Amino acid sequence: METALYLIPVTLGDTPLSNVLPTYNKEIILHIRHFIVEDIRSARRFLKKVDKTIDIDLITFYPLNKHTSPDAISGYLKPLQDGFSMGIISEAGCPAVADPGADVVAIAQRKNLRVVPLVGPSSIILSVMASGFNGQSFAFNGYLPIESGERIKKIKVLEQRIYNEHQTQLFIETPYRNHKIIEDILHQCRPQTKLCVAANITCEGEYIKTCTVAEWRKIHL
Amino acid sequence: METALYLIPVTLGDTPLSNVLPTYNKEIILHIRHFIVEDIRSARRFLKKVDKTIDIDLITFYPLNKHTSPDAISGYLKPLQDGFSMGIISEAGCPAVADPGADVVAIAQRKNLRVVPLVGPSSIILSVMASGFNGQSFAFNGYLPIESGERIKKIKVLEQRIYNEHQTQLFIETPYRNHKIIEDILHQCRPQTKLCVAANITCEGEYIKTCTVAEWRKIHL
Repeated sequence: METALYLIPVTLGDTPLSNVLPTYNKEIILHIRHFIVEDIRSARRFLKKVDKTIDIDLITFYPLNKHTSPDAISGYLKPLQDGFSMGIISEAGCPAVADPGADVVAIAQRKNLRVVPLVGPSSIILSVMASGFNGQSFAFNGYLPIESGERIKKIKVLEQRIYNEHQTQLFIETPYRNHKIIEDILHQCRPQTKLCVAANITCEGEYIKTCTVAEWRKIHL
Repeated sequence: METALYLIPVTLGDTPLSNVLPTYNKEIILHIRHFIVEDIRSARRFLKKVDKTIDIDLITFYPLNKHTSPDAISGYLKPLQDGFSMGIISEAGCPAVADPGADVVAIAQRKNLRVVPLVGPSSIILSVMASGFNGQSFAFNGYLPIESGERIKKIKVLEQRIYNEHQTQLFIETPYRNHKIIEDILHQCRPQTKLCVAANITCEGEYIKTCTVAEWRKIHL
């Protein structure tokens, strides 16, 4: 196994690992003793799920969240520079995509250290696949603004790009704000604009449905 | 197993299946007798790799490429409407993302048929992960224009979006045009703009390297 910074995806929810992770990931994980993690508790839980017999006490965790300073992050890569592989684990899905990790990877790239991304579930790519939308051109926009006026403005800009550039527009939302944002879209967008709602991807109750705004208005109201 | 249109990723090159595909995918594949495929020969090869004992003669293949008419595509979904699961297999990576399949999925969604995306390697998401670039906002732009003037114009528009919107810009290129496009970028982009070159992802000789344009100029020239 090559010495590298491995980007290690986890499940998107309570689904068996074998449904969404290649067995190769386990081989890699079992060789790593240094993990940079979004949350230590959930990382421990994930590692125990990968292999019950894993000795957590032999592992060093480096927390990575909004409180972590850039200086600390740069120091995290010391074991890798000393020749030990490291892993990055986020709380759900693929690290460094809509999740912390990109800043660590950027530092590794700057220091000319090898970075290896492992395959796992990405809600972004899985929803593009199942939406039926243009997969030759798409943009992931993260979270839309929380403030209503700003959010509506953003929705209109994104809708414009669908028509002007034939570019699929993706964004994520927290469950408790889902209803509000769907309402905004149904009020602000053209009837023929298509909306795909994707929830619980790869988990029980997976829901991925594409309709026009006009059709959603009938379903939703 | 739920009756659905399954989107079945394949490897990105000559790498063992267990490196990039969950074992669950095999379970699903072994229950499907109707596959919509970008290329029949490579689909057969893939299925034999999934399970040597698979009886290809029991399987019906429906070719999906630029010669397939929309009418034919719509007819392809008949088995699914009759209660038999179907699969879509493209030549590399995830179907319907930078690959055929989205039009079939769109028809399935319109007919209110269940669509289930399976996890597998996506060069797009893997390169975002390993680039160290912003993964909270990124756009995949497919192929850039072939004509030199058009291509340079497009490169400048994309570079502008990096600075104005802090949006990571991705595109793909065929091996024989790689050199030309890197040259264009090194000539047209600002020295401080970062370029990640990702090739042979998940395969032997995987190469994922991020440098500034100024640094690439020194390496490349």
